[in-house]
Formats: sequence, C-alpha cells, structure tokens
Amino acid sequence: MTSGIERSLPGQLQRMARAEGVRRTRAILRDSHITLSHGSGGKASHTLFEAVIAPAFTDPILDMPDDSAVLTVHGATPDPRAGVSLAFTTDSYVVSPLFFPGGNIGTLAVNGTINDLAVAGAIPQFLSVGLILEEGLAIDVLRRVIESMAAAAATAGVRIVTGDTKVVHRGKADGIFVNTSGIGVMREGCALAPDSARPGDQVLVSGYIGDHGMAVMLAREALDMEAEIESDSAALHTLAAAVLNAAPGTRVLRDPTRGGVATTLNEIAVQSGVGVTIDEGTVPVRPAVRGACEMLGIDPLHIANEGKLLAIVPSDEAHAALESMRAHPLGVDAAIIGRIVATPEGMVVLRTTVGGSRVLDMLVGDPLPRIC
Amino acid sequence: MTSGIERSLPGQLQRMARAEGVRRTRAILRDSHITLSHGSGGKASHTLFEAVIAPAFTDPILDMPDDSAVLTVHGATPDPRAGVSLAFTTDSYVVSPLFFPGGNIGTLAVNGTINDLAVAGAIPQFLSVGLILEEGLAIDVLRRVIESMAAAAATAGVRIVTGDTKVVHRGKADGIFVNTSGIGVMREGCALAPDSARPGDQVLVSGYIGDHGMAVMLAREALDMEAEIESDSAALHTLAAAVLNAAPGTRVLRDPTRGGVATTLNEIAVQSGVGVTIDEGTVPVRPAVRGACEMLGIDPLHIANEGKLLAIVPSDEAHAALESMRAHPLGVDAAIIGRIVATPEGMVVLRTTVGGSRVLDMLVGDPLPRIC
Repeated sequence: MTSGIERSLPGQLQRMARAEGVRRTRAILRDSHITLSHGSGGKASHTLFEAVIAPAFTDPILDMPDDSAVLTVHGATPDPRAGVSLAFTTDSYVVSPLFFPGGNIGTLAVNGTINDLAVAGAIPQFLSVGLILEEGLAIDVLRRVIESMAAAAATAGVRIVTGDTKVVHRGKADGIFVNTSGIGVMREGCALAPDSARPGDQVLVSGYIGDHGMAVMLAREALDMEAEIESDSAALHTLAAAVLNAAPGTRVLRDPTRGGVATTLNEIAVQSGVGVTIDEGTVPVRPAVRGACEMLGIDPLHIANEGKLLAIVPSDEAHAALESMRAHPLGVDAAIIGRIVATPEGMVVLRTTVGGSRVLDMLVGDPLPRIC
Repeated sequence: MTSGIERSLPGQLQRMARAEGVRRTRAILRDSHITLSHGSGGKASHTLFEAVIAPAFTDPILDMPDDSAVLTVHGATPDPRAGVSLAFTTDSYVVSPLFFPGGNIGTLAVNGTINDLAVAGAIPQFLSVGLILEEGLAIDVLRRVIESMAAAAATAGVRIVTGDTKVVHRGKADGIFVNTSGIGVMREGCALAPDSARPGDQVLVSGYIGDHGMAVMLAREALDMEAEIESDSAALHTLAAAVLNAAPGTRVLRDPTRGGVATTLNEIAVQSGVGVTIDEGTVPVRPAVRGACEMLGIDPLHIANEGKLLAIVPSDEAHAALESMRAHPLGVDAAIIGRIVATPEGMVVLRTTVGGSRVLDMLVGDPLPRIC
C-alpha cells in the first residue's frame, strides 16, 4: 500500500486508488491456512496483507509490511503546534539458523530496522527489542545474540532503549525470535515517496545482490560451496544519507529484503503506476551467488538482501547518486541497473543478456523461507 | 532498573545506584539454559535481565522489561530546540490458548502496550504490530485476532500504523505470536517516576486482582469451575488520566501483569529504596479467583492482571485518587490496599487477615507460564 505521508495525504490517496486498481485483481486469498509462502514477502504475502490485514487495519498511514509509518507528533511544550515528523517501523526476525556467515539474528534485527527507517528518509534514533525465547535455549547463545545487537546498534549510533522478554515451552518456538521496532526523525525536505517514480528515472542498486539469502540458505542446508558467501547485513543509513545529499530529488529508496530486488521493483511499479525495465547484464551478482542460484534454480533478483540500497533517481541526478554510493564503503560496487518507463504499467521487464526480454514477477512461493 | 527520564537523569542515576546496591546481590545467574521461569516476570526474569541483558544494553534510558522508555525527539522544523517528549515501549505476546474468556491474544497485545504507555504518564497514540505465524494456522483464526486488534485500538482511540508478518515452519511456533510496540506523547508536568515512592504514600489498586491469569489458566487446562472467570484485559489510559488529574502528585503508576501485584510492589520497593506494607484483607479478590488459587496453591497477588492499575499516591491525595478510580467504569472496585514505609527497605510485607505478617516476595518460578 502507498505510504501515507500526512503532509501530502490527499495526493497520495489519489495515486493509491489508481494503484489499488491494479492490485485489487490480485487480492483474492484462496488459502484457508497459512503457508510458508505467506512469509516470503512476495505475492502470497501481498495477498494475505490485502485480503486479511488491510481490511481490518484501515489506518491511512498503515504501510505494507517492512515499511515505515511517517507520523507527526505534537508535544505539550513549548509550542504545541510545532510537531515533529517521525518514522516508526517494526520487524520480527525468525531467521534460521541463528548464526550464519556474516552475521546472526541479532545483527540482522538491528540493521534491518535501521534500514527500514533509513529508506523512509529518516535518521534512525531509537530501537526496541522484543525477545521470544524457547525453553532450553543456551544462555550463551542468548548472550552472543544480545552482544551482537548492542555492538550493531553502537556501530550505527542508534540507541536500544526498551525491551521485553518472553519464554515459550520447548518445541513452541525455534531458539530465538527477535522483534525490533524503531523510531527515526524525518529529514527536512525529504521528497521520498514510494509512488513517485516517473518515466525516465534511473534504477540504482548499491552493490552485489543475493548475498544474504544465499549465505543463510547455504548455512542452513550445510551445503559445501567452494566459495564462502557472506551475508551483506549492514546498516544503510549513512549510505542513504549520502545518496539523499548528492541527489536530493531521489524518488524512492528501498532495501530489497524478502522477495529480493524483483519484488521491490514490482511494488514500486504498482505503487507509482509505471513500468520498470532492468538490464540483466548490469545487475551486480557475485559468481558464487550466481553459481548457487543456477544450482538451486532461483533467480538472484528474488533473493533477500540485508545491506543493499535500491534507489529510483531522476535521470539528471542519477550520476551524482551513483558516485555518492561508490564513494561510500557500502556502495563501492553500485550500478545503474535499469530505468522507469511509462508502460506496461505495474510491471517489471528484464532485458536478458542474450537480447530477449521477460516479465520479472514478484516472488511466487518461497524457495528460501525464514531468511530474515 | 530505574526509568531514565532524561530531564532528571542525574538524580535518578543516584537513586538507581542506591537501588542497584540492593539488587546486585540477587543478579547471579546460575542457569545455563532458558527455563519458563525466565519468562515469568518474577525473580528469574529479573536475574536474566540483570545478568545477561543489562550488561550488553547499557543505554541509561533502558528500562526493565514491560516498561516504557521516555525519549526526547527533536525535529528539524520549526524550532530544532523544541523537543517533544515521547514514551516508547514494546511487548511480545505468546499467551496460550489464543482465545480465552474475556479476550484473545490480539486484544491483550493492543491493551497491554497501551497500558505500558499509560502508566509511564503518556497519552498512547501509535502502535506497530509484528506477527509471527505458524505454518498451518487457520486464516480464520488470524482474521479473528486481527479484527480484535483493530476493534481494541479503535475503542482506545489509538492508531495501528505499521506492521510486519513472518511465517515459520509448522512446529516452530505456536499459532500466533504478536509483538506490539507503542508510541505515546508524555503529559506535561507529569511527576511519575518509578523510584519516587516515599514513606507515608498510599497503595491503591483499581479493582479485583488475578482475573486475567486465572481465566487463561482455566481456559488452558479446560478446568471446569462453577464460576466463569473472565480476563480483565482493558485499556487503562483513560483511568490513568483520571487518576493523574485528580491526584497530580501521584508517584508511581503500574499495571501489574506478569508476576502480579506482589512482583510489581517488590520492584517499586527496590527502585524507591522503601518498604511496602499490604493489608491482605483490603485486597479485592473475587471469590471464584480466590477459590481457584487455593485449589492450585497460588497467591492471587502473584497472578497477572491485564486491566488493573496500581498507584502509589501521596497520603493527602489518596482519597481523591481513590474517588477518581471509583468514578471510572474500570475502577469501581478500587481500594487502598497498603502504604509505603521506611523499612525494611526493598521489601514488601503482607499483614494477613489473621493478624500475622509475612514477606511477600516476587514471583519465584512460574506457576502460570505464557499468561500474556
């Protein structure tokens, strides 16, 4: 659903209605029970959201899962009219295994929620931590996760300020589940809006895609690959700030997690009522990730990232945005991978390296469940 | 841990250090693995927090589980010096069964987080909802929970503005776990502080205790009692506001959930460096709850409540506070149940109906796991 930014709500609602027209045809829930696909972040997740959750939670600010709500709060002093614009987001983390090359559930939970705030155009400030622990969990495992969270928050300059711990019987959870919610302060004059992509805009990604999902997959299945693949889990707020400073007209920032770059681009296409063309040959994919994808029959564009920024930037600022990414330690492998087009509306088309083209859909099913 | 309210941090840190002196002697974690007791909200929960979580999460604002952090945020416009004071809290809900007389996991999750904000002296405004679903969950169950949440939020006048849904494999969760995090705006001139109880203050409770925990327990065990006991799950923010208006000098407000009134009073006694005397005969307990407690060998003062307010009020405002509770639909059975004393510091003493007295400790173990 289109993000409801209060100060521009009427215009957004109009665009939302148009986007809804595209999406309503998809929102028929045929399932009677929850399947893993409903947690994929892809098509089934969208259908569940639109058919079950959105009809009940009708707040105009309510966003799609993974996004931030943008709120204006008014204090009592000194001037009650002087509101502060905040971003507020929540994410639960259920990744399995808890530890994987490049990170663990704790680093993921801190960085992931920071990233949701960062791509909303906010400066992340405060996090909450909600733990659900399974009876029998080793205290040492808990300690390692918590210390990782504290370290990740300190690195990012974000404060963990409130928390909660619950315990369930053995066999009623899976070690540790972590919820982090976050509050950030909106940047002044930030023009970001998920429905603002326009034909001619360029599509940028900050580096190699698919690392996180494949690292978790290989760790889970104990697959022995020649090349070690590490999660890209990282806090993207300083990278996002660099892009916004260099390219203040940036339309959309996203971190393509569950469902990968393909799902995120489909969301943007629908929300903005535009098409997206991606040039397959320009998409940065590590050879090891590409090899593992071919072996498993998965498109790297459908694999979750936890440290990559996707940016839709007006054509005249695209070069500046790209340079700002490449000048940042987390964006040295950034690339322009495509552009926004007028039609076909609501669709993403991939131009393949062999000169053909095919529709790049949202993730269907969930080849990599519990990736974050 | 003492709540860190930024504007009075130095004084609070001094009191915190004193309180820590009392508590440090208890913070030795002998367990190598998580047990259900670590989720009880009682002694084991405190030990886990102090031994594992607090050493890693060192932010001075970080509170004990269940409490709210009080934050000052500064926006960019119009006056960056004009901060807004917010309360921020998080809670995960793992109650079993999902539905019980008087409510379900959804109503509990909405009301519980509203209550954490209310007892911090905040006006609850925004909630996030993080769902962890077990593969195989009936969509209809999900729909009922979500509709309950929407209804509870609407009743309370609080907005659900952001959310997230994850799915885990069958047997790796238990139907639905819900996290709600909440943001509230702090009332102006609110004097509440968890370490501010002073000898002479009166202890008030807003009605019958133990209803929630016993309702869930009976529903879970399918125990057939003559009298139906219903959860007291309710949003307490308007009751809290009534008390604060009638008794602006109120020292502490709490909602005694996990661990019950006894655990909450022990926390206050430690945090304020005072003693608490409770007159058993004045504590409102329904006959059906008392009967079930006797059968199960549990003290009603150790049973979770989800719609009761505990207030520590200066003696000269206690009557006004009591009347304000009794004039509110959620406080008609309110009572003064005890008082703050100078010694023994950090302890709660129960004067029994037969004229004796005994130490009323925090909950030890967890006779009623997964009660919220």
